[in-house]
Parts: sequence; C-alpha cells; structure tokens
Amino acid sequence: MKYLIGIYLHCFLQFNMRSFGSDNNSGVHPRILQAIADANVNHAIGYGDDVWTHDATKALRKLLGNNELQALFTFNGTGANVIALQTCIMPFSSIICPSTAHIAVDECGAPSKFTGCMLKEIETPDGKLTPELIHPLLHGFGVEHHPQPKVIALSQTTETGTVYSTKEIKALADLAHQHGMYLFIDGTRIANACAALHVSLKEMTVDCGVDIFTFGGTKNGLMMGEAVIPLRKELSENLRYYRKQATQLYSKMRFISAQMIPYIEENIWLDNADNANRMAKLLAEELAKNNLVQITREVESNAVFFILPPLLTAKLKEQYFFYDWDESIGESRLVCSWDTSEKDVREFIDCLNNLSSNF
Amino acid sequence: MKYLIGIYLHCFLQFNMRSFGSDNNSGVHPRILQAIADANVNHAIGYGDDVWTHDATKALRKLLGNNELQALFTFNGTGANVIALQTCIMPFSSIICPSTAHIAVDECGAPSKFTGCMLKEIETPDGKLTPELIHPLLHGFGVEHHPQPKVIALSQTTETGTVYSTKEIKALADLAHQHGMYLFIDGTRIANACAALHVSLKEMTVDCGVDIFTFGGTKNGLMMGEAVIPLRKELSENLRYYRKQATQLYSKMRFISAQMIPYIEENIWLDNADNANRMAKLLAEELAKNNLVQITREVESNAVFFILPPLLTAKLKEQYFFYDWDESIGESRLVCSWDTSEKDVREFIDCLNNLSSNF
Amino acid sequence: MKYLIGIYLHCFLQFNMRSFGSDNNSGVHPRILQAIADANVNHAIGYGDDVWTHDATKALRKLLGNNELQALFTFNGTGANVIALQTCIMPFSSIICPSTAHIAVDECGAPSKFTGCMLKEIETPDGKLTPELIHPLLHGFGVEHHPQPKVIALSQTTETGTVYSTKEIKALADLAHQHGMYLFIDGTRIANACAALHVSLKEMTVDCGVDIFTFGGTKNGLMMGEAVIPLRKELSENLRYYRKQATQLYSKMRFISAQMIPYIEENIWLDNADNANRMAKLLAEELAKNNLVQITREVESNAVFFILPPLLTAKLKEQYFFYDWDESIGESRLVCSWDTSEKDVREFIDCLNNLSSNF
Amino acid sequence: MKYLIGIYLHCFLQFNMRSFGSDNNSGVHPRILQAIADANVNHAIGYGDDVWTHDATKALRKLLGNNELQALFTFNGTGANVIALQTCIMPFSSIICPSTAHIAVDECGAPSKFTGCMLKEIETPDGKLTPELIHPLLHGFGVEHHPQPKVIALSQTTETGTVYSTKEIKALADLAHQHGMYLFIDGTRIANACAALHVSLKEMTVDCGVDIFTFGGTKNGLMMGEAVIPLRKELSENLRYYRKQATQLYSKMRFISAQMIPYIEENIWLDNADNANRMAKLLAEELAKNNLVQITREVESNAVFFILPPLLTAKLKEQYFFYDWDESIGESRLVCSWDTSEKDVREFIDCLNNLSSNF
Repeated sequence: MKYLIGIYLHCFLQFNMRSFGSDNNSGVHPRILQAIADANVNHAIGYGDDVWTHDATKALRKLLGNNELQALFTFNGTGANVIALQTCIMPFSSIICPSTAHIAVDECGAPSKFTGCMLKEIETPDGKLTPELIHPLLHGFGVEHHPQPKVIALSQTTETGTVYSTKEIKALADLAHQHGMYLFIDGTRIANACAALHVSLKEMTVDCGVDIFTFGGTKNGLMMGEAVIPLRKELSENLRYYRKQATQLYSKMRFISAQMIPYIEENIWLDNADNANRMAKLLAEELAKNNLVQITREVESNAVFFILPPLLTAKLKEQYFFYDWDESIGESRLVCSWDTSEKDVREFIDCLNNLSSNF
Repeated sequence: MKYLIGIYLHCFLQFNMRSFGSDNNSGVHPRILQAIADANVNHAIGYGDDVWTHDATKALRKLLGNNELQALFTFNGTGANVIALQTCIMPFSSIICPSTAHIAVDECGAPSKFTGCMLKEIETPDGKLTPELIHPLLHGFGVEHHPQPKVIALSQTTETGTVYSTKEIKALADLAHQHGMYLFIDGTRIANACAALHVSLKEMTVDCGVDIFTFGGTKNGLMMGEAVIPLRKELSENLRYYRKQATQLYSKMRFISAQMIPYIEENIWLDNADNANRMAKLLAEELAKNNLVQITREVESNAVFFILPPLLTAKLKEQYFFYDWDESIGESRLVCSWDTSEKDVREFIDCLNNLSSNF
Repeated sequence: MKYLIGIYLHCFLQFNMRSFGSDNNSGVHPRILQAIADANVNHAIGYGDDVWTHDATKALRKLLGNNELQALFTFNGTGANVIALQTCIMPFSSIICPSTAHIAVDECGAPSKFTGCMLKEIETPDGKLTPELIHPLLHGFGVEHHPQPKVIALSQTTETGTVYSTKEIKALADLAHQHGMYLFIDGTRIANACAALHVSLKEMTVDCGVDIFTFGGTKNGLMMGEAVIPLRKELSENLRYYRKQATQLYSKMRFISAQMIPYIEENIWLDNADNANRMAKLLAEELAKNNLVQITREVESNAVFFILPPLLTAKLKEQYFFYDWDESIGESRLVCSWDTSEKDVREFIDCLNNLSSNF
Repeated sequence: MKYLIGIYLHCFLQFNMRSFGSDNNSGVHPRILQAIADANVNHAIGYGDDVWTHDATKALRKLLGNNELQALFTFNGTGANVIALQTCIMPFSSIICPSTAHIAVDECGAPSKFTGCMLKEIETPDGKLTPELIHPLLHGFGVEHHPQPKVIALSQTTETGTVYSTKEIKALADLAHQHGMYLFIDGTRIANACAALHVSLKEMTVDCGVDIFTFGGTKNGLMMGEAVIPLRKELSENLRYYRKQATQLYSKMRFISAQMIPYIEENIWLDNADNANRMAKLLAEELAKNNLVQITREVESNAVFFILPPLLTAKLKEQYFFYDWDESIGESRLVCSWDTSEKDVREFIDCLNNLSSNF
C-alpha cells in the first residue's frame, strides 16, 4: 500500500505507507487514541490541575516505587531534555555527552541555547559513554577559566541502537557523583531498553543512581507526550518554572495525561517497545540473508544499521523513506515501530530482494 | 453536573464541569477530534513532511490570499510567540508591549529568556497600545547604550478582552515601520477579534501591514495547535530553525495539521469564536441584572470582567473555578468557550443568583 | 582652554576641555596613576593571584568590617552589575528596578541578555524605589506562569542624582527579605552617597541588610575598576565563574588592584566624591542666579538637572559637551567630577551668562 | 630577584619575579605607560568619542590598508572573542574550533553563553585546523534538526604555539566561504605570528580572506586592550551594540586608545612579539642541552612545551610559576614575554641545571 506524497512534495516519488524511517513515522496506539477521546468530556482546569494528570502521576510513582516523585509531562523529547538539563546546571557548567547524542546532533543546538553551556562531545565506537572515555574531561574543577563539568548525559537506548546494561549505568552514576556531577538519561527510547534487557524502569533508573531522566512516549505509540523525572529533591524544585519557560506547559494537559494512564497502567509502554525490538531483530535476520547487505551494528533494540551498494540504496529509497546515517560509508538506518508487523518486514525484504535480483 | 476534582487535589471542593475559568478549560471540537482519528492511519514522514501539513498550509494560504506564505505550526501559544519574536529581533533589541501582555505576564519570562531582550512594558487603560502611549519609548535609535526598539507587540484580542480595530492596527503598523520596527500580533484569540469585528483574517493582518502574527487554535476548539505566520520574507527565512530550537517542532506533525484543515476550511475557527463571543455577551447581560454585580469592562470578545462583594466571590468560587484578575479591587474574570452553551450561562447565573439571594 | 575634537569628529565644533558631560569625562587621579606606575615592576601572576589584589581585598574588608568578604574586581560598572545580578537570579526570576535605572536604560540590555530575566521597571518621581511603589509587583510567587520576583535593584546615588537614606535602604532590604528576594545596589556612585550623607560604606550597605552591591571607581578618579561585593555567602560562591564568563576577569589584575589600594586606604574614594558633590552644589547655586535657568531637581550629589530656553541650550552645547536628560521638556544634565574645580564652575557660569546676556 | 607572594597566598612559596608562566605575567612597556600618562590631561568625551580613539583607529586603518575599517577596542581578549563571534552567528549556528582553542577551554564557556551556540571541537595534533579535519563537520546545512555550521574559528598563534602559514589561512577562508561560513581568527597573539613568519598584519588577514579577527595587545606589552576587526561590512554593522552589551565598552576609552597609537605607529606590537619569539627559541635551545629535558613541540612562536621528570618539575615549580599543559604526560608550558631578556633565560636555565645536577 502506497501513497502519493510526492505529488505535493517530492516530485512524484511514491513512498510505502509502512515506514522504517523512524519510530515517529507510526501513528497512535488505538487504546491511547481511545483514552484521548474519553478525556474529551466537558471542561477541566488547565495546566495539569486535573484528575487525569493526577492519575498519570500516580501511575508513574507506582512504576518507580516512589510516592513523592515530582514528574512533569511535556509535549516532546527535545522539550523534556532541555528542561532536565536546565535544572542540573549553572550557566558556567559543561555537559558531557557522546558525539552522536540527540542533544548534540538533532536538537538544533537547543541544549546550548537553553542552558548557555558547552556540550563536551566524546567520540565513541558505539554511542555509549564509559568512565574511561569520560575521564580525560574530568578536570579543571574549581578553576574559573574552565567550564565546570556538571552533567554526564547518556541516551538509553543510544542513537545507534545500543543499550547500556544497568551495571554500566551504575558505573556512570558513580563516576558522576564522585565529581559532584549529575547523571542524566535521555530516555526517549528507554522503554526499548527495558524491553531488551528485561529490566524494570525502576531498576534501570532509581536503582542505578540516575539523577534525572526522561521517559518517552511519542516514539512509542503515544500521540505526543514525554515525562521529565527528577530523582533528587534539588532537581525537582524549580522544574515547573523551567517547563513553563521552555514553552512545554500544555494548557489542555489532560490530553497528554490521559494517554499516560493506560500507557503505564496497561503496560503498553513495554509491550510496544518489545514489539519494535522483536521486529528489528527479525528485520536484521532477514536482511542478513541478502548478500548485498552488510549489517553494520549489532541489533540491541529497535534500530538496524546497514550498508547497501549505493545504487541499490538509491533504488530502495524510491520505495521506502529512511535516513542516511553515516554518509561517508553509505550507512543507512531502519527503525521499527510499536506497530511494525511481520508483514511489514516481509514486504520490505521482498522489495529489497526484488531490487537486488535485478542488480 | 459536577465532578470531584477536590478528592485528589483541592480538599474536596466540587467544581462545576462547565467552566468559565478559561477558554482552555474546554475540550476538543468533535469534528477536530474526528480529523485526528482519521489521520491515525499507517505511517507518515515526521516533522511536517506529510500531506496533512501540506494541505493545512494550503488552507492557510488561501485564507490569507498568499500562495507563498510560509506558516509553521506549533504546539502552543507561548511557543508560537517566542518563535515569532526571535525572528524579529537582534540580541540588543527591545520589545514594546502593554504591561498586561501575555508575553510580559503569563509566560514565565520566556520571551526574555529566548530573545535575551528587554520587554518595555506600557501601562494602558484597556490593554491596548496606541501610538501616543508608545511614542515616549521611541528614542535612543542608533545609540549603543540603549536597547534598540525593534518590535511593537500587541495581543488581539487583548488580555482584557478588548479588540483593536483594523484602523488601530494599521496605525501601529505604520508607526512601527516609520522606525524600522516590526508589528507583531499575539493572535491566540485573533479568531475572536475577527468574529467580533466581522473582519476577515486577511483584513485583520495582511491588509493592515502586520509583519508577523500567530493564529491560535488551542483556546478555540483544537486539541493543540497554533500557527506562526510571517508576512515578510526576511522574517520567514530562519523560522524553521527557531521552531526546532524552541522545542516546538512536533515529530508527528500530522496530528496538528489534521486539526488545522477542517478548522480553517470548514470555518470552525470563526464559528467557535463567534459562539464564545455571543455567550460572553449573554453572560454579561445576565450578570448585569444582578445588582451585586459590577461589570468592569465593556465586553468586546469572549471575556467578562466583574466585581462581586468579596464574600460572594468566595462563595461562587466554591462552585466554579475562575481566576482573580485584579486582586487589589476584587476584580474577577470569566471566559466563554467555543462550546459554552446558553444552558451553561443560565446555570452559572442561577447559581450566582441563589448565592446572592442568601447574601 | 579648549581643544579641537571637531576637526576629526564633529565638523569643527570646539569643546571646552573641562567637561560637565559626565564624571567619566575626567581622567585619573595623580595618586592613582602613580600607583599604577609603581605596580609596573617585573612580573606578576595573572588573574588576581598577586600581592596587589591581596592588599586591595584586605583594604575593602577593613572598610566593611568583614574579614571574610569575597569581593571581586571588574573593569567597569556594567560588568559589575551583570555579575552581581547573575549570582542572585534563576532564569525565571524577575528584577525590579526604577525605569530610570542604568541597568534598564544604559546597558544596551546587558542585564536581560546575561540573566535571561525580565526587568520589571517602575516609574518613579525621583529615581528612587519605595516599598509602596514596589508592592504591586510583589505577586505571583510560586505560580509558574509568572516570572518570579527575586531582586530589588536600586542605584545609589540614583541616575537623577538623588540619594537614598540608610533608613530607606533598610526598608527596601526588609521588604526584599520578607519575600525571599535580594536587595542589590548599583554602587557606581555610592561614594557620592556616602559623602553626601556622611555615612560610612559599611553603614550604607552591611548595616542596612544589603545583599550585594557594587563599589564604583571609574567615575570617581580611577583609570578603571569597580568591585562586586556580595554580603551573603550563597551569593559569593559562584561569583568568580560569573566574572570570568562575563569577560570581566582581567589577566593583568594588578593594574586594577594597585589603584584600589590607595583609593580605599588613603580615603581618595570619599574625598573625590565629596569634591564632586560640593562642586555640584556650587554649580547649582550659581546657575540659580541666572533667571533663564530653571533647576529641575534638588541637588543631592554630583549631578545638576536644569532647563534652558532651547536656543540657549543649543548655544551652550557649542561650547560644552553635555547630555540631554528629558528631551520632551528640554531638560539637560551636568555632572561634576573628582577634579572639577571652582575655576571650572566659574568659567562655565561665565560662558552661560555671556550667552544669556545676548539672548 | 624574588618576591614573597607566598606570605599571603601560597604558604610561603617564593617565586621568581621574572616569570615564564604566561605572557600576561609581564607588565606594561614603558613607552605605553608614558602614552597613558600623557593622555591623562583634562577631560575627554567618553566611550570612544575622543581624539585618541580617532587616531588609534586611523593607525589601524593604515596598518591594514583600509580607510573604512570599523575596528572597536575592548578591555580583553575574551571580550573581543565573544563580540566577534556574536556578530557572525545566528542562535542556531555552530562554531567549529580546535579542542585546544581558548574559546573552548579557557573562557569559562563565555562563547556558548553569549551566542547560545554549540562549539564543535576538533581534535588536532598541533592545535591547527585543516580542511581535512573540518570536512566531516560540514554537513546538515539547511536541515533544521542540526545546528548550522557558520564559523571556523582558529587561533593565530595557536594555544600550542604553532603558527598557520598564510597559505593555510587562505585555504580555511576559502573552505568557509564555499559553505557560506565565516573565518574568524582569535588574534590574541597574532603579532607573534606576524613576527615569526615575517608577514604583515594585512597579509595575514585581509589578503587571506579572513572575515573577522581580533588584534591582541594585553599579552604583548599593553596594560590592557584588544581590537575587534571586522573585514566585511555586514559583520561591522552591529558590532558597537555587541560590545556595549558584552560589558566591553570602556567609558574612559582614551586610556586604551592612547596605548594603541604608539603600539601600532611605533611598531611596538611587532618588536615586542619578535623579542618574545626570539627568547623562546633561545630558551628551547638551552633547555635542549639538558638531557633531563624533553622538548615536546617545535617552537614556532613564544611558547615552549617540555617534559621533565615529575620530581624535577615539582622542584622547579618552587622557584618559578608556570602551568601544566598536559598533566597526563607531565608536559609543562613556558611562555616568553615582550620583556623577557637573555638574562632571564640564563637565570632560568641555571636554576634548572642546578636542580638537575642534584637529581
């Protein structure tokens, strides 16, 4: 099944309506859409002073085993990230992250713009920070000439689809705390990590000593909605102001909160992520059978990275929308969604195999 | 019909489910919700590269009679405002606005935070700027010691419910242009102004020489969604970057755009605003019959300002949620919504009259 | 004695070399220049880790009766102001000041640019804040929609030459503290206030409950140099970083510190200010004898405000450089310096009287 | 000759008064100090509207062969850098620089704080950028998700004492312009580069296509003073506002400008740099004779990098103040100044040799 987006936008290209371009290409889980519709009754006080927000917060608290948790909902992931970072830093702090981090690459510089701070980017082989990689940057503390390292920022799962073990997260949290720093997790896809490792959200965060993290929904079956979750008192105190000032306070908050309730209470967050992960595994297995395909990274979550002969990539892109990852080596990325089906995978593989056979 | 929000949040207060607290207390127009549901099919490329966004843009262009218009959609009004202001200013500019402006009072300082600029606030009798009021601030041009005035920012309708005539807007645009400045309209409720004056959106903006404005949806029957609409080429060039950096680029953009299509094409934007305005007129008329009520401002759009005896205000607040406006004189505000009905108004008036009779 | 600046810059205008334009038009006190020359021996460690800075700090500590004071020197007053403000605020704070404040009018928006905060300007009759004037702005605490008032910022002396009594300062400090706010004094000309009121610097600041202030030198006989003086521990902790990041950390710090030592220890700060104040009094007395002159404000420190017939102002400006103050009423400002002499005053008065007699 | 700084600050350490710690440890050239004293006559209009600033600007224009040049003077190098960068960027730009750059390492994050932009740091072997090193960062143009590369920022001489040839600078300028970017040079020590290469300042900048650069004085014999020099019209238009807002507009500007006149007209800028370079060469030659010393980088300007056995470094630091460069390998840095003499070098070498002989 295809649709004619090109007629308007892209010179008559036809793209398949089942995309592997990103997990934000998929729509809204039907149970979530129902929850939105159900919340559309009468009037409710704005900005989160409503029963849905109360219940969603309660669900989050239960998930994380903390009755005092002050989580705040936002529209999107970039919003959640800049709010979380702002509450951690002083204007003269620096933020350590991998050079592939969404905050470094894909947010148009929003983290620097909002915080005024430098991001100190580290080259990594796999998108993952380690104490060894970070160590050379941990100096200059107390010397006013240098930006003061204050945050270690990691993405779970990473932008290259890799997953930190809880042990690895704990090691980074310990390192941060030894230097008076905070460990922040961009958790846009933290559900995929929990599904991949069979670890609860609490084990992944609270139990590892994480200081603040975001909990993604938009890429995992929600219409929109993320949470910023501070795990230290001093990081939660001013969070509401940062959210409002960052333009992320939703007046009709009930329509995010109403999504979060079934997302959390009915385990949709984990089931959706699990499906995406499994489909990525399947996709990689099937791709590997085509000897024109080179899988470039181990598939640990819902993304598959691969290299095709350049002309074949071009042909495939006429049928499917997806992103280049590393242009210098012709590496592309595919991402599976909460609603990616085995049929979707088969059709993609069939399409590729057809193109390959004529190659 | 009432609901028990207090059981969780407000010490067992019971509020009426038909609120006059704000026009963001109402929900989503059913036609809009249907459009969202209809858009929830298959996959679509993210960030606005989809057919819904294309069509919504086309609808806006038609509404404004400009085929090259570069409008951008955002989640909310504060987001739209800061994006519009950023594209107008240099870091050493100043922004002139009424002291009651949403950008000055109700956005937690976001406009200053994003632009780094001073807001020069002007006291007004009715929330409306005039050339006479602005004139004393138009000096220091070219002198590096002083912030350079660059934007005249008005809200249409204003935060006090007043409405600028097109002649008044044109006079402000002319004044701005005489000084190399821009006229910006915070159009969160510009639909209410169009309805009140029986003036088209084009007549209200393009034809008056407005340089950039926002077009509200969230307070007028959408789930969420506003547009930033630049009417000068130089103001549209970098708008996309400002939106992304301001955390206002929605990955699943189709779910805002899908709302905008019927909102514009089916005239919902105007019909909704018209209903809200009419209900406010009715509400004011009915209130005026109660001799404990003092209506404090002429009702030009969908807000009603009034003073009750303090104890009566307190009693009424036990039944209905609404905001204090000017605490120093006991002034309160009521706002009518797209879905406020005559029955809602009657019930409110009955409630007030009952309380009054025992007073 | 005149010089030909116009030959280069101003179409052959000739200005008198003894200016009443501003107290920054005068040069460096000879004792201060000597101290600079004396410090120009051999090498010294940069950035303040030198004996001069140590001794200057010690002198300041003695002046303020506090051995633990953490004062920092800066190049200029705007620098000192933004550093002091930054250490007081959060990005969502607001700063309350008179609409005539240097931070609001004369710093090209630097305070907003550095802090990201709104300045809430208050109209005053005489450049001075009072609790009554401030009171209407002290609301919205704890509500995330509104910028949170955090600093009351006053200038001592004010930009209109008025002087706060210690009682008035104490009342503002108390008001600030009642609301969890800080009282900041822009002390560019605080020496003139001490001289005018015969009050010590300690009585003017520490004893009044001031939280942080700046201590000016550049306008009072130094080549350059101000101090930022925090009087609360939490305001001094990060000051060094703010100074460095604000580009105000001088590598060859000894050349500011060397000035500060005699400035403080030899009472030059007070003697210079006293001379300027006395000359302003004399100037005003002499001006008042000319019946074309209207003195517009009482002379409390070193500035004189007056109105002449417009043509006479124009004539006088051909001989002397000085600034318009309120163009709408033709008000001008004269400022006396540490080195203004009775002869300078006589010559100015003679010049004006000559021009007047031909008028 | 030694002095007792330790008595106050450093536990009774005694440092030699002839420092190799930094070229900001030296004082003011006597001719410059004389020029300051000569300028201390009578009054002058503030903020640069004086004859000295006029003459200094004229001298700079002559040096660069451009009668329309709009150079601005600042207090210090960090100030000059942030002003220059601000005029080049939009808030969503990125700035490419070596990871050793002063703007990345030694300015407490000021460039990010002022611009809101990301600094994209590149690892280099020798502190120098090359087109090859930059190339991987030149992507994402026109895509709103990514910060837009806008400035290539290099330091001449570099922080490791290396020097770009004019050919190398030209290649970087060409690369920048091919991508719609600007080439900025942090010229704190550009005089040392001109002296090292026997190239005029014009050949080093204007003739290479540099877009904007700073011209240092503080580290090269001035008391304080740098210039920001834009070589494109669009970069000079708003520079005055950026300077003021950055707190770098000096009210008593004549005292910087008066230094700049002889500095430029009497060739002091070049002679001073030449002396520093020659002394560094001599120092390196003498150091190389000691077989406990490992010279780690070729000496191209006025800095010498070397490794000693750790205990010897510690011993030497009891006598001389100097900075660690790369602690991980025990590398230290020595810098020669405009006033470093052969005697200073001999004494240092003698000191080291004495310590070595007992080692």
